[in-house]
Amino acid sequence: MTSNIEQLAINTIKLLSVDQVSKANSGHPGAPLGLAPLAHIIWKQMKFNPKNPEWINKDRFVLSNGHSVALLYSLLHLFGYELTIDDLKNFRQLGSKTPGHPESETPGIEVTTGPLGQGISNAVGLAIAQKNFAARYNKPDFPISDSYVYSILGDGCLQEGVSSEASSLAGHLKLNNLIAFYDDNHITIDGDTNVSFTEDVNKRYEAYGWNVIWVKNGNTDTDAITKALEEAKKSDKPTLIRITTIIGYGSLQQGTHSVHGSPLKADDVKQLKEHLGFNPDETFVVPQEVYDYYHKEVTERNQKIEEEWNQLFESYKSKYPELGEELSRRLTQKLPANWESKLPTYTPSDKALASRKLSEMLLDSVFDSLPELIGGSADLTGSNLTRAKDSVDFQPDGSGIGDYKGRYIRYGVREHGMGAIMNGIAAFGANYKPYGGTFLNFVSYAAGALRLSALSGHPVIWVATHDSIGLGEDGPTHQPIETLAHFRAIPNLKVWRPADGNEVSAAYKVALEQNHTPSVIALSRQNLPQLEGSSIEKAAKGGYVLQDVAEPQVIIVSTGSEVSISVDAAKLLKEQGVAARVVSLPDTHTFDRQPKEYQLSVFPDGVPIMSVEVLATSGWAKYSHEQFGIDRFGASGKATDVYKFFEFTPEGIAKRAVKTVDFYKGSKIVSPLNKAFYSIHYE
Amino acid sequence: MTSNIEQLAINTIKLLSVDQVSKANSGHPGAPLGLAPLAHIIWKQMKFNPKNPEWINKDRFVLSNGHSVALLYSLLHLFGYELTIDDLKNFRQLGSKTPGHPESETPGIEVTTGPLGQGISNAVGLAIAQKNFAARYNKPDFPISDSYVYSILGDGCLQEGVSSEASSLAGHLKLNNLIAFYDDNHITIDGDTNVSFTEDVNKRYEAYGWNVIWVKNGNTDTDAITKALEEAKKSDKPTLIRITTIIGYGSLQQGTHSVHGSPLKADDVKQLKEHLGFNPDETFVVPQEVYDYYHKEVTERNQKIEEEWNQLFESYKSKYPELGEELSRRLTQKLPANWESKLPTYTPSDKALASRKLSEMLLDSVFDSLPELIGGSADLTGSNLTRAKDSVDFQPDGSGIGDYKGRYIRYGVREHGMGAIMNGIAAFGANYKPYGGTFLNFVSYAAGALRLSALSGHPVIWVATHDSIGLGEDGPTHQPIETLAHFRAIPNLKVWRPADGNEVSAAYKVALEQNHTPSVIALSRQNLPQLEGSSIEKAAKGGYVLQDVAEPQVIIVSTGSEVSISVDAAKLLKEQGVAARVVSLPDTHTFDRQPKEYQLSVFPDGVPIMSVEVLATSGWAKYSHEQFGIDRFGASGKATDVYKFFEFTPEGIAKRAVKTVDFYKGSKIVSPLNKAFYSIHYE
Repeated sequence: MTSNIEQLAINTIKLLSVDQVSKANSGHPGAPLGLAPLAHIIWKQMKFNPKNPEWINKDRFVLSNGHSVALLYSLLHLFGYELTIDDLKNFRQLGSKTPGHPESETPGIEVTTGPLGQGISNAVGLAIAQKNFAARYNKPDFPISDSYVYSILGDGCLQEGVSSEASSLAGHLKLNNLIAFYDDNHITIDGDTNVSFTEDVNKRYEAYGWNVIWVKNGNTDTDAITKALEEAKKSDKPTLIRITTIIGYGSLQQGTHSVHGSPLKADDVKQLKEHLGFNPDETFVVPQEVYDYYHKEVTERNQKIEEEWNQLFESYKSKYPELGEELSRRLTQKLPANWESKLPTYTPSDKALASRKLSEMLLDSVFDSLPELIGGSADLTGSNLTRAKDSVDFQPDGSGIGDYKGRYIRYGVREHGMGAIMNGIAAFGANYKPYGGTFLNFVSYAAGALRLSALSGHPVIWVATHDSIGLGEDGPTHQPIETLAHFRAIPNLKVWRPADGNEVSAAYKVALEQNHTPSVIALSRQNLPQLEGSSIEKAAKGGYVLQDVAEPQVIIVSTGSEVSISVDAAKLLKEQGVAARVVSLPDTHTFDRQPKEYQLSVFPDGVPIMSVEVLATSGWAKYSHEQFGIDRFGASGKATDVYKFFEFTPEGIAKRAVKTVDFYKGSKIVSPLNKAFYSIHYE
Repeated sequence: MTSNIEQLAINTIKLLSVDQVSKANSGHPGAPLGLAPLAHIIWKQMKFNPKNPEWINKDRFVLSNGHSVALLYSLLHLFGYELTIDDLKNFRQLGSKTPGHPESETPGIEVTTGPLGQGISNAVGLAIAQKNFAARYNKPDFPISDSYVYSILGDGCLQEGVSSEASSLAGHLKLNNLIAFYDDNHITIDGDTNVSFTEDVNKRYEAYGWNVIWVKNGNTDTDAITKALEEAKKSDKPTLIRITTIIGYGSLQQGTHSVHGSPLKADDVKQLKEHLGFNPDETFVVPQEVYDYYHKEVTERNQKIEEEWNQLFESYKSKYPELGEELSRRLTQKLPANWESKLPTYTPSDKALASRKLSEMLLDSVFDSLPELIGGSADLTGSNLTRAKDSVDFQPDGSGIGDYKGRYIRYGVREHGMGAIMNGIAAFGANYKPYGGTFLNFVSYAAGALRLSALSGHPVIWVATHDSIGLGEDGPTHQPIETLAHFRAIPNLKVWRPADGNEVSAAYKVALEQNHTPSVIALSRQNLPQLEGSSIEKAAKGGYVLQDVAEPQVIIVSTGSEVSISVDAAKLLKEQGVAARVVSLPDTHTFDRQPKEYQLSVFPDGVPIMSVEVLATSGWAKYSHEQFGIDRFGASGKATDVYKFFEFTPEGIAKRAVKTVDFYKGSKIVSPLNKAFYSIHYE
């Protein structure tokens, strides 16, 4: 039975949420009304310290149906996070701490949600990280990590394919630290779920290998919710607790979609407040006894728990100094000292290799010294070459094919799920740097998750091999064209396309050093020669003069597999009496953040610039006057044939360079980097 | 029991497939070896005419695991399609009719597959189209449409979220004309499926509302396959027939992933051919009796069936002249005469409206006269405004909430599934023009399907509302930034962002007239004024001078909701003595295909050009010297506040226009459309 004070707390959560939406005249009051009892029950038993939201052994809570965010803000306020009543009053206003969907910048919000299906998939990633973290650091009598991941999700999340992918993997991995609550309220924006969603969700999740519990009255049956939660903790599988609720419970519009995404009408708010025993003329009311109750029952208990954990960790460091030091380091989000000495370097006499192979060699070299590195592939391990030699697979303990200490995840053919899971792993903290492999073209399947990596600042790394028409026979369905233009237009995303071994090392160096920026590293299937003039240091600037001449008549700027062809084109041009500088621009995001002076030293006024890349030309006009690219789909054939067909040969490049020189002869040439004004970057 | 000739036919399919991969030294021999018996059984009972692949009442076959394409080429050859033994010998060679994955340009291939999960989702679309088509045109004694959709899919397809989305909807819609065969071979690229895929597939599909049948020995038990197929045809649900096979059956490497994606070794081919009774020294052998058998058993029967159908259709036209005429028209892929007279037009005195609202009014106006139009939304009907007034929902007959004649699909929150399903609907033929709504930002969830729309030339239309920071309070998780840069870089995709009512009409006019090009129409949430100077005719060119001055000192080029702000900026500039031309560029893809002369009349030499759009600037340098955009993520707040924050106001635009004029003063200014050379377009 719910005590009086608990009922008062639940009602306070409801009305605080409703008031936010009403004040903003925008938002979603329905779900908070249905979910307040559940939220209260989850949070009152959760382990967390509002004064130290980064504590590594906290339980995590993910609101996957992010549009219900008013509920979350009410909870954060009541449970003592840095969110005032004034912040709630500023719900959905520009510059507030309470934007329209949960953003991880707000203290206490683990991951940015709203795009449906992402949150529950992030929760799978958080659960994977917890299992891996616990397996590495827990010792007998030292439960360094024993936290849970809780998530609420709605019908929309369950309809999205990304959650299907992540949920199937969660079942396979037996992540019993994950407890998800399905808000079964029968309503989506289009009305009753019976218009499009009549599947048997319980059965589907059982098929995935989950433990499924159904609470049939989530509106008031708090005992059943509590019991379900207790049962879930005993399971050896992830648990889905289906909570049947009435959306907008208590509203005059309850159970209809009109209560989903619009504020309640004034008379409805009035009757609701009266019914819940609140003064209908007041807004944003929190009875002092509710603050006191949560403080005493939850915050004080949790502060004690964290203090005990701190003492535990101190003893741990004495007993296991090596692991203790490693863990302390990871908690400061710093890589080990001198880790970059493990990065391979190359000279032009080293043999030509595919950059995916160079990536594998690098991973082999650094994997052991970076316990925060946790890799995987969307079922393309042998093609992406993502598995370091000494890896153990991340699999359930006792499975015989790996264990939770393993750091190589078999994601299956689930790119979007992989992307969202990597975001969750990174969000766990402890400096986790997840990387995942697939073909560059299929990173696009994960566009929804990739965008959120960038928006939330998760330092995940996509190992994106088979990065062009150079993959050959698989043909246009597999050959990326628009892909790099797309990714380069995403704010806060590094998009590397290294040209040789040193550039591969530079790409990983910069990518791994990021704490708030994700990276895509595009790698070739075909062999590339080690270049004269490349170095980790130079490439780490994002762009540099690879090979120069005294007075260049043209600058050829290129990336990845086309750089060496451009070098050969420059030789041809020299024979024809044309002096060409060759610039390698492996990552525009990093290059854009170099001092203007440096950028102009690479791309000065007075010389026409031609870009060369076997993908869409879109975006290249930012760095060049003329663009040589492929603005159509690719073709199936031997890689060398396909390159010839599109004229990406020394001859084809040189021919266009000559046209470029001729076209600009006698003109005053301004560097494309000199502009009348600049747009703002996001950092 | 399989007869001798059938066994010979099956063996021929196997070896033709193996020989293709060996000759190309590239490809996937494993699945064809396991699937040849199944393929034989499906195809020998299928209804199709290889000499008329466009016949509307043919059965459709979709190879969702497209990497097994050698199998499909073997079938197409043996069953009499225009694919010679020489074509098979050119497997995976540049310019051949037999590329590395199935491409719909090859006669007999319904949809381009390869990217996993797409094919089975296309099959759902084909099945929807068939149901809708039959519901509209079938009459007592006139079964104009009674065809089936068959699809083979593998483990990879089942792991992809897109297939989960489409399959859940297929179950809801009770598409019993869809029969899918799951090649349960336990092997993916990463090895045994037990490393990542241990869910209970049968149970999952039952949960979706499918009929599930399991054939436990697909290698040889052809009777069980035949029986399962017969049972499937009796079901009132879609059927999944799980066929457990051994990948590479008969190879020395059978049952391992080494037979998945690499040619068989020479000795392996030798033993396989010997074992199957073929001469190991010969390649690409087809015994004459196999040709004869398929010709007699399948082709002759089918030609008769098509002839009967042609007669049926003739009588139909007499008995139902109106429907007969409509159907005849649709089969020629032509819209009704004068359909465009239904397109709304506007003058500046008409009231300001959101372009999503203008889109709704247009759909209301044209919906009844275009029976090929079949709409829907990914659970955002009330926000996208995609449902024409008189629509009936597409729902199972007898459901009480619509019927198969309905032309409005409740897709649920399943953007990727919706995209792939729309591709399938378009691929059915009969001039189907599917459109689907979601927020512009979430079209990205469907990037995999959108790319295939463009690659395969499916004329689908995305109604992409809430197209910018102008959506306001929902914030950066919902505000597109990179999205238009991404879509504009996709070859063969129109990306409209209309500025007012006339431009909305132009966008739909051009989009609906396409037979081989998809369109995204980006629409505002906020109201936009009807502009002086706009017209359907001008906007249908993709870009035009909206408002001009005698001697422009600057050209402001803009799209969508920023055009009217740019017009106001031009007025401000006039007050400041600066003459500005305003260009509206609603679709660069269409504009790029205008005569060069016209393009240069819009963007001439000698005037600096500044682009204005509240999304990433990437790509705009193709049309402008200076770019005003947003190269960071958006912000949650009232739309007007957010516009002000980013300075997208008349003042903010005018300020930058002045900077642009000053920066280029005294320079020789070349139009960005004048280039040293051009990249090739794909048509």
